[in-house]
Amino acid sequence: MFTSDVQIRVRYAETDQMGYVYYGNYGAYYEVARTETFRKLGINYKVMEQEGVMMPVLELRCKYIRPARYDDLLTVKLFLKNKPHGARIKFEYEVYNEEQVLLNVGETIMVFVDMKTGRPTGIPHYIHDQLDPYFTA
Amino acid sequence: MFTSDVQIRVRYAETDQMGYVYYGNYGAYYEVARTETFRKLGINYKVMEQEGVMMPVLELRCKYIRPARYDDLLTVKLFLKNKPHGARIKFEYEVYNEEQVLLNVGETIMVFVDMKTGRPTGIPHYIHDQLDPYFTA
Amino acid sequence: MFTSDVQIRVRYAETDQMGYVYYGNYGAYYEVARTETFRKLGINYKVMEQEGVMMPVLELRCKYIRPARYDDLLTVKLFLKNKPHGARIKFEYEVYNEEQVLLNVGETIMVFVDMKTGRPTGIPHYIHDQLDPYFTA
Amino acid sequence: MFTSDVQIRVRYAETDQMGYVYYGNYGAYYEVARTETFRKLGINYKVMEQEGVMMPVLELRCKYIRPARYDDLLTVKLFLKNKPHGARIKFEYEVYNEEQVLLNVGETIMVFVDMKTGRPTGIPHYIHDQLDPYFTA
Repeated sequence: MFTSDVQIRVRYAETDQMGYVYYGNYGAYYEVARTETFRKLGINYKVMEQEGVMMPVLELRCKYIRPARYDDLLTVKLFLKNKPHGARIKFEYEVYNEEQVLLNVGETIMVFVDMKTGRPTGIPHYIHDQLDPYFTA
Repeated sequence: MFTSDVQIRVRYAETDQMGYVYYGNYGAYYEVARTETFRKLGINYKVMEQEGVMMPVLELRCKYIRPARYDDLLTVKLFLKNKPHGARIKFEYEVYNEEQVLLNVGETIMVFVDMKTGRPTGIPHYIHDQLDPYFTA
Repeated sequence: MFTSDVQIRVRYAETDQMGYVYYGNYGAYYEVARTETFRKLGINYKVMEQEGVMMPVLELRCKYIRPARYDDLLTVKLFLKNKPHGARIKFEYEVYNEEQVLLNVGETIMVFVDMKTGRPTGIPHYIHDQLDPYFTA
Repeated sequence: MFTSDVQIRVRYAETDQMGYVYYGNYGAYYEVARTETFRKLGINYKVMEQEGVMMPVLELRCKYIRPARYDDLLTVKLFLKNKPHGARIKFEYEVYNEEQVLLNVGETIMVFVDMKTGRPTGIPHYIHDQLDPYFTA
């Protein structure tokens, strides 16, 4: 299993009139966790796109356990529980506040797409190179 | 079953650099569908909150089938497949473009909460009054 | 002078914990007003971009007079007070609620850019064709 | 003069189909700069609101010089050029990318409001205490 975590400070812009982080904003938090995880692995998602591979989302799931609020310093933990293969990759997330209370869990399934053909493509080798050591038996 | 639909024009603000509607924005589209559905039923969600009942989201699921793009005129179909009971209510969604191509499906599970106590509460009677006729055997 | 107006229903996603529309969201409202104004003039901004001319924003100004709130049905009035010339165009906006109370005024200055060269370009002739009749002396 | 700066990594969610940070998102960046500036001064904006004083925006101005792009690590410099007095406070901003290229300049005028009365109120004394040393002649 590979895990990584990133901290995100809740912005005023992200709250709604309930005083909670709007439920639609967790997708952006998960995206920050993915980008920063890739960076820690030496993979730059921006460069990957420039080289012609993008990674749109196929599925998103969130469970909202407790609300996040303005100015909370969240920790988003990202989990890659299974060694990715084929064109798809599944990330799981847990969002905690500063008191280590679990606020939210989620997952996304992404697909690697060749931007020229618009078709699914294998996971780039340099991602395999970085991730495989975490999954060797 | 109760169904309803609403049209939403994709804003430039909602696109990302892939040229797609950002995956996190569907939650807001579903919310528009809920608000407009309630309005058609004679229920004003704003007034419901002012009277002390709010409806936070417990779960969100989305499947992204094809991308929505800037200026697409989307139809969001909302489905209430089961008669709600207890404190929870489940909405399902289908998002189509103008060519009636299915772009996205999703669901949300919401809970009615008494804003004074912060605890789940039964569905307000006026919602039952409006919805029950659609589910009589 | 050319004027046009569009109605926008405030989404829950657009509120913040003050219970107001977040101040950063007016830019998106102005954008909706521009897109719909263009459509009324027979100009499709999406097609304009596909044909290689985009219109990034150079300047934005907003004055917040009274708050807009969830579920308000806003009217955004767009004004083109001067006949555009050169590569720039200035739009002005007024945002009203259903009681015709003025909530917000703003303006944007945009520039027409040739997407191949990345440089400013003259306003496309079909925009002149549509707008000029409103400014003849 | 008082100055402060904060770093913000551009999220994918904040881009649009031009590949730029959507022009409406700078308001949220400025807000992050304000919140972090206050925190450095020992002022917690969240607590200020809990104690009954909020700070809505009266005016916003932005000039877009060059586009910010996905994954850019922006530095937002905040300037308080004049000692605040009365109920209003003016912040100015400059946004730079990692190559120290100036991308955007802006300003906001905010007003301190007593949340009970809804009326403008003097700047809280603890803000004066923190800021005044930067403006003594």
